[in-house]
Amino acid sequence: MILISNDDGYTSKGINSLINMLRPVADLLVVAPSGPRSGRSCAFSVLEYLRLVERHIEPGLRIYSCTGTPVDCVKLALNKFCADRLPDMIIGGINHGDNASVNSHYSGTVAVALEGSMKYIPSVALSLCDYRDDADFEPMRPIVLKVVGDVLKHGLPRGVCLNVNVPVVPEFAGVRVCRMAEGTWGNEVITQRNPRGFDMHWIVGEYTNDEPEADDTDNWALSHGYIAITPTTIDVTAYEAMEAMRSRLC
Amino acid sequence: MILISNDDGYTSKGINSLINMLRPVADLLVVAPSGPRSGRSCAFSVLEYLRLVERHIEPGLRIYSCTGTPVDCVKLALNKFCADRLPDMIIGGINHGDNASVNSHYSGTVAVALEGSMKYIPSVALSLCDYRDDADFEPMRPIVLKVVGDVLKHGLPRGVCLNVNVPVVPEFAGVRVCRMAEGTWGNEVITQRNPRGFDMHWIVGEYTNDEPEADDTDNWALSHGYIAITPTTIDVTAYEAMEAMRSRLC
Repeated sequence: MILISNDDGYTSKGINSLINMLRPVADLLVVAPSGPRSGRSCAFSVLEYLRLVERHIEPGLRIYSCTGTPVDCVKLALNKFCADRLPDMIIGGINHGDNASVNSHYSGTVAVALEGSMKYIPSVALSLCDYRDDADFEPMRPIVLKVVGDVLKHGLPRGVCLNVNVPVVPEFAGVRVCRMAEGTWGNEVITQRNPRGFDMHWIVGEYTNDEPEADDTDNWALSHGYIAITPTTIDVTAYEAMEAMRSRLC
Repeated sequence: MILISNDDGYTSKGINSLINMLRPVADLLVVAPSGPRSGRSCAFSVLEYLRLVERHIEPGLRIYSCTGTPVDCVKLALNKFCADRLPDMIIGGINHGDNASVNSHYSGTVAVALEGSMKYIPSVALSLCDYRDDADFEPMRPIVLKVVGDVLKHGLPRGVCLNVNVPVVPEFAGVRVCRMAEGTWGNEVITQRNPRGFDMHWIVGEYTNDEPEADDTDNWALSHGYIAITPTTIDVTAYEAMEAMRSRLC
């Protein structure tokens, strides 16, 4: 059984395209947000309760919506529906939009996969670099089936999930396993005057790839027409900095 | 100038203890949530606007509250107040409660430091392993001054922040620079019946250190009375998994 969630909500085209692709492959349990939850990262609900609504049940496919975050959905699914048997795999997506580089820190889609990894379940985040509601996910079908088949068969290293980003191009140049690019968001605030007479600040931004020359990054792969697969770790220890910190602080 | 935020809100004792400790050290700009935002991770507000309220202004200390997440606070502060000059350092905390091991993924306090690192500004997350509103942060003063002084003087490697967790003990056993422990949360859902007749699901949980024997982890350090400093990277690429993934998926 594969557990699926996302951050665009259970009615979005991306998650329903994924359900359609994986229906022949495995039993599916879908627990996804009731509406859009982009940018929620690994947030979970500390002070708010969650509601769970059954949306669709048929043999091999169960779909529930949840009022919480993507991570809430995974926790709820594992604890309410998977007490007897854990999923063979957890998938976040397919996301409407790019989750490469530092976007992976903000992404609720990637958070689904991280939460799966934190439970030692092989997990994958899938994203298409197209934010539109009616984006066409069909070109992703072969890579989705390949990645899912491979992970179901071989698993993933403990604590490692895959962050898969797919460009919108007439034909894919290929598949690259790459590292996360160093990039930054700037010009991140737009302020408007609310009709009721107070300032509203909106978080927006412009992204810059800070190492455009490097050809081993996810940003490079995507901008050159490649599918970018970034193995992503839940162990965020900066091992290479430990010795210097030890000499300075211990 | 040091930029301070947190996830417990601008009125919490932890952030005000930190302000008190750092007042003699540097000019402080505080932009912190208007109320509790624990568990918000690196979430930012995509669809909601933010409001910013001036709470206290005196020479060398400005305090603002913000309706958004900890990461919203940092983005807002950098874009509204630091256009001319970036902060010398960004600090999240002092948090009421432990942010070691996988908690770092969920923590809004750690997210403040990660957001700072994503802007290449030396950043630190500070947490005390005491969730109580009236926790005593005073024992942290020497380590806070030591870490902040060191980071102001020497900076940090690009893309690396420090996650500092402090135990509650009569006397610290010392300071350990350590890696993040592998640990898992289980039993994460409690369901109650709402008086209005529907199920409310609450995310809770019990934490298990999955490698209690390992003496190089943050969990080990804390449970043995040491202050735990975990250098934490924003580069979440699982480098050691890349070659195997390449042979499987390319």
